[in-house]
Amino acid sequence: MRIVIVGGVAAGMSAASRAMRQNPEADVVVFERGEYISYGACGLPYVLGGDVDSFDDLIARTPGQMRSRGIGVRLRHEVTGVDAKAATVTVVDHDSGRSAVEPYDKLLLATGVSAIRPDWATTDLGGVHVLRDIPDGQAIESSLKDASAHGKGRAVIVGGGYIGLELAETLHCRGLSVVIVEKAPEVAGRMLDRDYQQRVRAELEGNGVEIRCGTSVEGLTGKDGRVTGVQTDHGLIRADVVIVAVGVRPNTGLARVAGARVGKTGAVAVNTRQETAVEGVYSAGDNTESLHRVTRRKVHIPLGLTANRMGRVAGVNMAGGDATFPGVVGSSIFKTFSLGAARTGLTQTEADELGLRAVSVDVSSTDHAGYYATAKPIYVRLTAEHGTGRLLGAQLVCNNHESVKRVDVIAALLHGRGKVQDLFEMDLSYAPPFSGVWDVLLVAADRLSREIGKKQE
Amino acid sequence: MRIVIVGGVAAGMSAASRAMRQNPEADVVVFERGEYISYGACGLPYVLGGDVDSFDDLIARTPGQMRSRGIGVRLRHEVTGVDAKAATVTVVDHDSGRSAVEPYDKLLLATGVSAIRPDWATTDLGGVHVLRDIPDGQAIESSLKDASAHGKGRAVIVGGGYIGLELAETLHCRGLSVVIVEKAPEVAGRMLDRDYQQRVRAELEGNGVEIRCGTSVEGLTGKDGRVTGVQTDHGLIRADVVIVAVGVRPNTGLARVAGARVGKTGAVAVNTRQETAVEGVYSAGDNTESLHRVTRRKVHIPLGLTANRMGRVAGVNMAGGDATFPGVVGSSIFKTFSLGAARTGLTQTEADELGLRAVSVDVSSTDHAGYYATAKPIYVRLTAEHGTGRLLGAQLVCNNHESVKRVDVIAALLHGRGKVQDLFEMDLSYAPPFSGVWDVLLVAADRLSREIGKKQE
Repeated sequence: MRIVIVGGVAAGMSAASRAMRQNPEADVVVFERGEYISYGACGLPYVLGGDVDSFDDLIARTPGQMRSRGIGVRLRHEVTGVDAKAATVTVVDHDSGRSAVEPYDKLLLATGVSAIRPDWATTDLGGVHVLRDIPDGQAIESSLKDASAHGKGRAVIVGGGYIGLELAETLHCRGLSVVIVEKAPEVAGRMLDRDYQQRVRAELEGNGVEIRCGTSVEGLTGKDGRVTGVQTDHGLIRADVVIVAVGVRPNTGLARVAGARVGKTGAVAVNTRQETAVEGVYSAGDNTESLHRVTRRKVHIPLGLTANRMGRVAGVNMAGGDATFPGVVGSSIFKTFSLGAARTGLTQTEADELGLRAVSVDVSSTDHAGYYATAKPIYVRLTAEHGTGRLLGAQLVCNNHESVKRVDVIAALLHGRGKVQDLFEMDLSYAPPFSGVWDVLLVAADRLSREIGKKQE
Repeated sequence: MRIVIVGGVAAGMSAASRAMRQNPEADVVVFERGEYISYGACGLPYVLGGDVDSFDDLIARTPGQMRSRGIGVRLRHEVTGVDAKAATVTVVDHDSGRSAVEPYDKLLLATGVSAIRPDWATTDLGGVHVLRDIPDGQAIESSLKDASAHGKGRAVIVGGGYIGLELAETLHCRGLSVVIVEKAPEVAGRMLDRDYQQRVRAELEGNGVEIRCGTSVEGLTGKDGRVTGVQTDHGLIRADVVIVAVGVRPNTGLARVAGARVGKTGAVAVNTRQETAVEGVYSAGDNTESLHRVTRRKVHIPLGLTANRMGRVAGVNMAGGDATFPGVVGSSIFKTFSLGAARTGLTQTEADELGLRAVSVDVSSTDHAGYYATAKPIYVRLTAEHGTGRLLGAQLVCNNHESVKRVDVIAALLHGRGKVQDLFEMDLSYAPPFSGVWDVLLVAADRLSREIGKKQE
């Protein structure tokens, strides 16, 4: 059996490893158009910031390691076509320039996403970057060195999503002055409701990051081949380095060629076994949509764990096993400066858009016992369905960043369609250096129960 | 309606507040034999260590604040008798020395636990202490000052349970040399399995704490009215201060007098409404047993959250409402030096003792992404029932102490009798400063699924 995998990062390599474990006799080959496989793209900002020593540290497995497990890895090999009827792919070797037709029994499209580059960002000017992969990171590193060679450099980050916010911290720590330009009225995009977006912005501004929301970029200015400024509808912003972090787009080209269906989310549609509508063709990772367990709708939320998990499922199934993807509940988390922000399920905004009868409460408490030296304020918005009391989601913000990881308790409850009362009854662990005696999640559950009760009276 | 509450700490004051909220017309009176109410006893070690500024900081509500809510608080009033038929209690006022008979409609026994003092510890020697309440803490503080006035003092902590271990850190940080004497073969008592106890011991020893396990105390030596040493079956240990932390015993005297049943656990038996077997008499807090949701057995695990929760339930019910205590799953957590240790559910040892067919796996990973600067090793033992795959418990240890708070995800699953596969499917939050892409809990679930699968083949 020949298993062909297109894309060698999170989903692709997880699939390769799992397929091999499931069926050690299988012939597994991975075509990766880039020069790196199996790296932790989520760590890219932290190499730039110095919390990770080098880009090499992000690499979980080298091609050599994969090959020693019997997995064929071909770098700089781009799959440019699929013939699902013939069960072949066309592969271009970027070193030799030659193309070849390769047969498959099972094909996995793990083609990921590409960073969106608006028209103004397609430029030859130096110092303008996106950040999706290791070469992007290396290019930014090089620009940062150039910028700081000319005194204190200035970085403009276009886009206030979590990558932009993570980069704001790391570039600030590198000594650059940092400006974030965001089209929307607030940073942190759809991840958080407005009040929680504002807490994130306050953290950035408190650390000296300039934030210009409600501002659209119209173009770039340059001199001697290097960027010098970002032209916006609110004036020109001087810049030595520009990072374009306005979002990503799933790479669905091959899926379309193969005849697979692309969903309304814009990502490839699959069943719970990661199978596309085309016999023998699977899709997994950031290019693929998934089921949201809270809403029962298809969503496209490209994140590391989801990609790895989809890859595993596809790998097992392609190799003759039987695995299913359980869906997501919309958990995400990020750190910027000392602030951690996390969410799971739905925000109040998202619940409203879906026409759900959602009720939220906001609770502020301390992450550790209030009297304990390291305690910081922690803010929680907990959201549930009016009437049923079913939990819908939570948002957390705290200046001890790790304290927001407790969002996972809510994620666990969302999986089982738990109710507010279930949360309130949890026997959560307590000692003063870890939480209050009533963990803030329990306080929120108590408040929300009463709120729901009141509305029902 | 007159509600009388015996004991004004966690359960007692929670009950008083809830009763008042439930029925603002009620006459609620709290008799507290000591001088303080409503304090966080779990914070006592941290005042001594300096992570909390003063003992006053532990006080959540003063008598004045409670009185302004209409709750009667009588300090230094000890309830010495109960006549359940007459529905009265006998109360001694330790200031006037007078006793009075007070009627009640509902009575709550929130009498807590007392520190066990073995025969050798009932002494007039100065410098010998237990740590249960604020006066105990103040007495230790005074002894520490005396000890350090004579150069670098030496503290011997008898008992390696979590209070002993927390104190070891705080006394070490105060500049004392610290010895822990423990009768059992390892520290951390029944909280952890042997391998995890050893990790805790290694942390203490690595920080210069001397640990003598398998050692029994036989007596104390003293000079000029102060303790000078601890005589053990393995020789004499010089000591300037001795802390006796060998466990606690529920205060069940009044419950017995009232005719309430004391369970096999040694604590007061109640139903889910916190009612004892005697009409109108409730019991809540550390003196009371609770239902373990995993084993469905009665247990006595005196901890802060449980006490507060039981108090709430009793308060609501005494005032005419209807609340039930949901039971516990055996979650606990502590910090010593930089190490955090947490457990929930059952250890493998406990599961074996109960005759459950338990399977455990041990996983070591990093708490944050392996490549991220702050990542530390984290060790997880995950335990499930063979055959059904039902989760039974987890133990975690990590040198970023807060990272073990993720034990709460397992606690959440135990509430719903979740399975290993449920855990594996969780959409836990991920970013490099918070966890690996596969959180260590997911890694453990994956490994444990396979282990169970193997055994079933």
